[in-house]
Amino acid sequence: MSGARVFEVSRRLRFGECDPSGIAYFPAYMAMMVAVTEDLFAAIGWPWPRLAREHGLATPTVHLEVTFRQPGFEGDHLRLACRVERLGARSLDLTHQVSRDGTLLWLADQRLVAASLETRRSAPWPEAVRAAFAPYLETTNA
Amino acid sequence: MSGARVFEVSRRLRFGECDPSGIAYFPAYMAMMVAVTEDLFAAIGWPWPRLAREHGLATPTVHLEVTFRQPGFEGDHLRLACRVERLGARSLDLTHQVSRDGTLLWLADQRLVAASLETRRSAPWPEAVRAAFAPYLETTNA
Amino acid sequence: MSGARVFEVSRRLRFGECDPSGIAYFPAYMAMMVAVTEDLFAAIGWPWPRLAREHGLATPTVHLEVTFRQPGFEGDHLRLACRVERLGARSLDLTHQVSRDGTLLWLADQRLVAASLETRRSAPWPEAVRAAFAPYLETTNA
Amino acid sequence: MSGARVFEVSRRLRFGECDPSGIAYFPAYMAMMVAVTEDLFAAIGWPWPRLAREHGLATPTVHLEVTFRQPGFEGDHLRLACRVERLGARSLDLTHQVSRDGTLLWLADQRLVAASLETRRSAPWPEAVRAAFAPYLETTNA
Repeated sequence: MSGARVFEVSRRLRFGECDPSGIAYFPAYMAMMVAVTEDLFAAIGWPWPRLAREHGLATPTVHLEVTFRQPGFEGDHLRLACRVERLGARSLDLTHQVSRDGTLLWLADQRLVAASLETRRSAPWPEAVRAAFAPYLETTNA
Repeated sequence: MSGARVFEVSRRLRFGECDPSGIAYFPAYMAMMVAVTEDLFAAIGWPWPRLAREHGLATPTVHLEVTFRQPGFEGDHLRLACRVERLGARSLDLTHQVSRDGTLLWLADQRLVAASLETRRSAPWPEAVRAAFAPYLETTNA
Repeated sequence: MSGARVFEVSRRLRFGECDPSGIAYFPAYMAMMVAVTEDLFAAIGWPWPRLAREHGLATPTVHLEVTFRQPGFEGDHLRLACRVERLGARSLDLTHQVSRDGTLLWLADQRLVAASLETRRSAPWPEAVRAAFAPYLETTNA
Repeated sequence: MSGARVFEVSRRLRFGECDPSGIAYFPAYMAMMVAVTEDLFAAIGWPWPRLAREHGLATPTVHLEVTFRQPGFEGDHLRLACRVERLGARSLDLTHQVSRDGTLLWLADQRLVAASLETRRSAPWPEAVRAAFAPYLETTNA
């Protein structure tokens, strides 16, 4: 049974995020997804500058799968919903769903890892960071 | 037996494509991938402005899967290799491999479709465009 | 005597807007300035898609002068203030001031023009657009 | 009498650098200008990563003035010409001219400074960097 909170952001699709074919430029969608992830870490009290300063960690993306279903247009009012699917020892699996007026435009699976800024290798999430994710983690009733 | 040509581009990873954690910013990699695709269409004689003007078509990406294996650093000399895996009636499947000095940094599967700029729906590739892809298509001997 | 309203936006400086030297990447600031301008037009009831659809107009920037005084850092809480300095027959002069906690980080003078999407030449602002700018225009008492 | 070399780069205006109004997106031009500057430093033997590593310096832009004269379109073959106007003790003044087939599209004056990555304050150019700029400096005959 799911008790997990969805992390949601609403925003307009901007002029500068669209391309000359008149629709959203997908690399701009990817920057938007990074921003949602950035906001999620800030929401749990671990903005990335703090994670870097206190633990020497960054959160690079190691895997990404995206399906674009419908084009987005300049000015569209987007709803970005992000779910924490799994918090591993060194990884974080997120799913993203981006919709306009209830129509799903695109969806993504993203895996990030905790990585040392010094060695650039993966590292365990600090315990305090793990704990802070609790409200966004799936809970299973007995 | 494969007689397919690989489309290759070499370039530096730029300052403006890296992030404050000191490595390549992945949305910038995605813009780089769009640029390789753009160059591939130009190489076969169908630059996107021509495709738009003569056939009213754009080539939106509908699916994307990317694995980031090693971080890229400012100034890295990148080799971007793109293979045409399959040319469908309305789609184009590409694989991308990006490496530095023989080390694979990231790889991607990308599906684009031909789409009408007017209706935004998928459309068949024009015959002349299909024919122009021949040098990049896998050929099978009898 | 000034009765002009200042158009203000507040936002964080994002990870993806910073560069590997650890500060804001100035082209990202320019995208931020475009977004403020976009929001100003939306605020007066003339979002750019409406301006394009109803009047066939875009608002390209023709001149820009920017002074960067202090570096911006990831996570900075920015206040962006935009003033309409002058609304010409075919042009719009804006000034931008971007600050963090009362410290001015950068300031800019920007001139946009109304331009036909068809001919790409400058055009007069439609009367309804001119009127909509009234709350942001300097008023002089007799 | 001028013996100064002009630093030139040629490249296409890309799809991803254009906006939904169908012309070049000016923040993308600014990224292009940063790239020219990056290439200039590499050409004199001081790529930015080396400047950071050996001298702890970055080269932030402190002032910028740009005039956009003609719109650029997707696929345009651009010639970017950069001149070193003055090398100060801690600053570098550049002018940029970007043209298509001999038509000037935009021009810019840019001032960069040498700045410590640690203190974020301006610093003198190292002597070796100054010397490396010689081929691009105006020389005056007696």
